[in-house]
Amino acid sequence: MRIVEIHERNASISSSIRNAYIDFSRMTVSVVALITDVVRDGSPVIGYGFCSNGRYAQGGILRERFIPRIIEADPESLRADAGDNLDPFKIWNTFMANEKPGGHGDRAVAAGALDMAVWDAVAKIAEQPLWRLLSARYNHGQCDQRVLVYPGGGYYYPGKELAQLQEEMRGYRDAGYRVVKMKIGGADLDTDLRRIEAVLEVVGDGRNLAVDANGRFDLPQALAYGEAMRGYDLCWYEEPGDPLDYLLHATLAQHYPAAIATGENLFSHQDLVNLLRYGGLRPDRDWVQLDPALSYGLTEYLRVVEATEAHGWSRRRLIPHGGHQLALNIALGLQTGGSESYPGVFQPFGGFADDVPIVDGYTVGHDTPGIGVERKQDLYAELQRLTGD
Amino acid sequence: MRIVEIHERNASISSSIRNAYIDFSRMTVSVVALITDVVRDGSPVIGYGFCSNGRYAQGGILRERFIPRIIEADPESLRADAGDNLDPFKIWNTFMANEKPGGHGDRAVAAGALDMAVWDAVAKIAEQPLWRLLSARYNHGQCDQRVLVYPGGGYYYPGKELAQLQEEMRGYRDAGYRVVKMKIGGADLDTDLRRIEAVLEVVGDGRNLAVDANGRFDLPQALAYGEAMRGYDLCWYEEPGDPLDYLLHATLAQHYPAAIATGENLFSHQDLVNLLRYGGLRPDRDWVQLDPALSYGLTEYLRVVEATEAHGWSRRRLIPHGGHQLALNIALGLQTGGSESYPGVFQPFGGFADDVPIVDGYTVGHDTPGIGVERKQDLYAELQRLTGD
Repeated sequence: MRIVEIHERNASISSSIRNAYIDFSRMTVSVVALITDVVRDGSPVIGYGFCSNGRYAQGGILRERFIPRIIEADPESLRADAGDNLDPFKIWNTFMANEKPGGHGDRAVAAGALDMAVWDAVAKIAEQPLWRLLSARYNHGQCDQRVLVYPGGGYYYPGKELAQLQEEMRGYRDAGYRVVKMKIGGADLDTDLRRIEAVLEVVGDGRNLAVDANGRFDLPQALAYGEAMRGYDLCWYEEPGDPLDYLLHATLAQHYPAAIATGENLFSHQDLVNLLRYGGLRPDRDWVQLDPALSYGLTEYLRVVEATEAHGWSRRRLIPHGGHQLALNIALGLQTGGSESYPGVFQPFGGFADDVPIVDGYTVGHDTPGIGVERKQDLYAELQRLTGD
Repeated sequence: MRIVEIHERNASISSSIRNAYIDFSRMTVSVVALITDVVRDGSPVIGYGFCSNGRYAQGGILRERFIPRIIEADPESLRADAGDNLDPFKIWNTFMANEKPGGHGDRAVAAGALDMAVWDAVAKIAEQPLWRLLSARYNHGQCDQRVLVYPGGGYYYPGKELAQLQEEMRGYRDAGYRVVKMKIGGADLDTDLRRIEAVLEVVGDGRNLAVDANGRFDLPQALAYGEAMRGYDLCWYEEPGDPLDYLLHATLAQHYPAAIATGENLFSHQDLVNLLRYGGLRPDRDWVQLDPALSYGLTEYLRVVEATEAHGWSRRRLIPHGGHQLALNIALGLQTGGSESYPGVFQPFGGFADDVPIVDGYTVGHDTPGIGVERKQDLYAELQRLTGD
């Protein structure tokens, strides 16, 4: 049993959307195919992975550092002790060899794509959906039958009007979502308040609406938005300021009574620990949103869950960012608080299996081996290009 | 006045050395040449840059993100308002456009190489040594005539014995250095104490010796080494633990009375601020060692100096890591506490101008325009390969 080849390439997820910080007109991701010599159903098992959106493809790091370290390793050193599967932890340690501590950025994104391909292969070799394998191995066999999902949307499309924003949100509600999310901070406060109120006309209760500033605000702005929004009793107020400005979050949490969410731009369990130590977040209401496909993969996310609980927080306060199938598998099998969803953007990487419905704001798992990428037709077509099929 | 072309490629700085965390047998750096249409002394001005050691070349990020953004920008938008030079801040903002906040890792390294080339060009266009330009623009004309330097050495060469370690340290002392540094944490405590005592036989006073654990220790190990070393009254105890584990540093600082140093694996002013807020370091004795050629360049290092002083610390507590000429220019022109030096390793990128001596542990500046890479023959030869000369 061995890894025969690892292919990677860049794929475009360009979009005309923008948030308060960046536009996505040239956004790319890395996609990875990990080909094994294990045969299931008459074909070699191939694990597929991709990095999540927002931080660009990482082909340089994959080609020059991570992939050669795996290919040059003794195959025996990458196998589980029982010899019946690959060992994702040994593989992770192998591709991270001779990498210094700290500096968790693009490297974490490259690892996110590669580690996803490893876990997809491991679950396929075990002939189980990944969420079921996670439940059995790391969650005492417990899992959730359905997962709270919310669409990351409400961007500032150039020229978008309030009516169009309402139309988008009606679309999400018609598709079965209950909680929706919209961007703020890309306009002035008055404009954003009008946008929020327009969306509240569609979704009713503020508990059905999260807002996302994408790290744009300094402390006075974060506090001013918090003060202006407190009457809405929103589902959460996401990324109010720079993701590393823990003092800003701690100060906001003393003034803003409703929930705060952050973490999609923290890329390691070390950074998560600092958020929990210094960010002043409240374990009874706030949310932590690290994205496993941006932050060293599921292998590191298991450390994230462990560190979260070691700091006295429930894993239910974790909602992985990214809206991809890896996050959904994690939410099901490890019982986090939910998963983001991207039904409309970042295609074909956003969204879940084609035939799995969203009902009353929840979705369910798939029943095929692996992460489930084969169950999303446009995604699978993109991934198959890696192996020349 | 415009940037005509930007070339980049990988260069090897492989070495058989290792520290407590990684080996350097496949270490690479990115080198950059920024060609302008400005003519000085009959030739186009070319700015050269390279990233510092330890975090690998970053060609993917340079080629796919940073360089295209500069080349596609309106040249007018990259010029200083007076029209007489390039503006490094405008260029930095241009290549960092559409980059999300947080995640300061490989991207910061790529920026370090590119930003160095920009500043080299700017100083050459201004016909001044970079340190003099920094003094005039950002330090009220003040500068240092000489800079404290220390060699980063004392690695665990495979098979190295105590006698060889002493020999290496005698070499540094003979070359004019007073303070030397050695690695710890790559062996057990007893072995490291024997190595420290062997070096103290050469350098005499503990104030002439710094030790560097390269982030290897957990808290109990960091405390145990601190307890065992306190009698030596060492110059400093560097990178005791994970660079992001601020609580470890704060705890150690309560137990270890002599100086602590850290920061070479923090890559942004945001991370520096967290170190100052939460790391418990003591402004009267401890040292902060961010490396400008790993952490978004001199442009970001000006923010580092500003944030350091805003937190009530003297810029004299900053000693840039890396042992390269950019760090030396910064130390001279901005009056930090000193600069690392690599007379023996990471060649040809480590070390200063060929004809500038080290005397009594200090060195002096160069007098030619730019950073001074043309004054280091082997480095200049390597950089010239970028433009096909």
